[in-house]
Amino acid sequence: MDREAAGRRFRERLEHVAQATESMLDRLLSTNTLPGESARPPRLVEAMRYVALGGGKRLRPFLVIETARLFGCEDEGALRTGAALEMIHCYSLVHDDLPAMDDDDLRRGRPTAHRAFDEATAILAGDALLTYAFDVIADPLTHPDPAVRSELVLKLARASGLGGMVGGQVLDLAAEQKSEQHTEAAVRQLQAMKTGALLLYAVNAGAILGGADEKQSVALSRYGAALGAAFQIADDILDEEGDEAALGKRAGKDAGRNKATLVAALGLDAARKRRDMLAQQAIAALKDGGFGARGAVLAEAAHFTVERQS
Amino acid sequence: MDREAAGRRFRERLEHVAQATESMLDRLLSTNTLPGESARPPRLVEAMRYVALGGGKRLRPFLVIETARLFGCEDEGALRTGAALEMIHCYSLVHDDLPAMDDDDLRRGRPTAHRAFDEATAILAGDALLTYAFDVIADPLTHPDPAVRSELVLKLARASGLGGMVGGQVLDLAAEQKSEQHTEAAVRQLQAMKTGALLLYAVNAGAILGGADEKQSVALSRYGAALGAAFQIADDILDEEGDEAALGKRAGKDAGRNKATLVAALGLDAARKRRDMLAQQAIAALKDGGFGARGAVLAEAAHFTVERQS
Repeated sequence: MDREAAGRRFRERLEHVAQATESMLDRLLSTNTLPGESARPPRLVEAMRYVALGGGKRLRPFLVIETARLFGCEDEGALRTGAALEMIHCYSLVHDDLPAMDDDDLRRGRPTAHRAFDEATAILAGDALLTYAFDVIADPLTHPDPAVRSELVLKLARASGLGGMVGGQVLDLAAEQKSEQHTEAAVRQLQAMKTGALLLYAVNAGAILGGADEKQSVALSRYGAALGAAFQIADDILDEEGDEAALGKRAGKDAGRNKATLVAALGLDAARKRRDMLAQQAIAALKDGGFGARGAVLAEAAHFTVERQS
Repeated sequence: MDREAAGRRFRERLEHVAQATESMLDRLLSTNTLPGESARPPRLVEAMRYVALGGGKRLRPFLVIETARLFGCEDEGALRTGAALEMIHCYSLVHDDLPAMDDDDLRRGRPTAHRAFDEATAILAGDALLTYAFDVIADPLTHPDPAVRSELVLKLARASGLGGMVGGQVLDLAAEQKSEQHTEAAVRQLQAMKTGALLLYAVNAGAILGGADEKQSVALSRYGAALGAAFQIADDILDEEGDEAALGKRAGKDAGRNKATLVAALGLDAARKRRDMLAQQAIAALKDGGFGARGAVLAEAAHFTVERQS
């Protein structure tokens, strides 16, 4: 496949997965499916739906699903896992946006959860989404083999907990308090945890669901780690360059806050070079994994990360 | 065993499990054991330890461990499960204490997490404890059979999520806003979710770990549900009667806030009667389960619930 055709195919798949994820989240968060029956507080469900539905590229579910598809695995389990992962991602945004943390009023152009509802509801909707993600993954509907479900749960907890996403958020908040410039090593560590861990998990989860062998798993982990790092640098570059309308949030605000970004640590040019190199590393890892033409969509995801404008 | 000997044995076991739980939590939250290696932010770990260590009767771990012991299961898996459950309980206290919710400065006589640290750290330490609980349970160290681990994860998510504990907290906050008196049915529903679900889970988890058959599981669920309801009523009665020093928090504050309690809905005398009846139901369920003398410690837990002074 040439780049143009591969790019087209990638955009089709990204769009398809975004729609499928939206439907799955809608279904998982509907009153027919949610646990608790009549006891579910409607306002809590409303807040969970507000937070999880109607937005985003759904890159994490995309990576779960496309990685599983490398192995011919196209069942609903990958979509459920992707939706659960998206719940974790969405809960983290809700908690990060709280007044005690980033104190943001807008997210994707809409009022943040604590503005649309209230702070208590936002905190609890976050807690409920985090908890429900494990419910969805541990459910036999996700995979008939409990060993697969257990591994998916364990790795999700590792990726999203104190050694992963939550730990990264703590480091990020601490970094803002510092007056000196952040070292490249510190920024890389922080970003590998705060955003990298969930993107890597997405790829690892697809490998687990697809039954990857050792060599394939290692190659896919390298792909996921490089892609995750490239994605975050690209985000920081966009934030530096971007305008408010395109991003739906105040652009340039990261610089004002002494945010730990590679743009700040290395400068814009060096950050762009590093982003591009990481994307190439991701593509090379797919080649090493021996996925051949089947890897084209994931390779395009790496190009997309570099080239995207929002 | 007569009541006196059974009571002694119960207190010994409660003390023993409290110490074993403290050691297990200390171990699980130590730098040798926690995931994330060098990347764990020390302040986050410190907050997680502050919140999880050094307190409480550890009633939930006690119920996991003693229920598993009914079946001769005395391995470390029950202790790990109990510790994970305690992490969920502790995270919920941290989030409930936040200014946006109950706005409490003291918990067990110590500053609450957001007072001892700060609000952001308290929210994130709660998130990290919630996440780590699933890590601990999904770890093969908890049980060699992934089907058991998956079931423990799924039921924990159900008990602690929107149809359980988190949902109960939402209902509780909403109840405070109402001016009219709460109906008995509404209070029972709310309490079955907010505190009952985790206590019931403790018993169910012990039954899963012990390999209970259908009849035993049903009997134990009845025991757990009745005990959980009795426990909460006892708590509300203590709050009504208690003095500040004994409880380590402001007594009588629930009444001032139009809290949804059975004491408020039924009056103190009727609440006491209901508490005692539920304890008897719990004990009867153990008899129906056919546990005979082995059930004596759990039966004493029901008596303890009725008779405890703090």
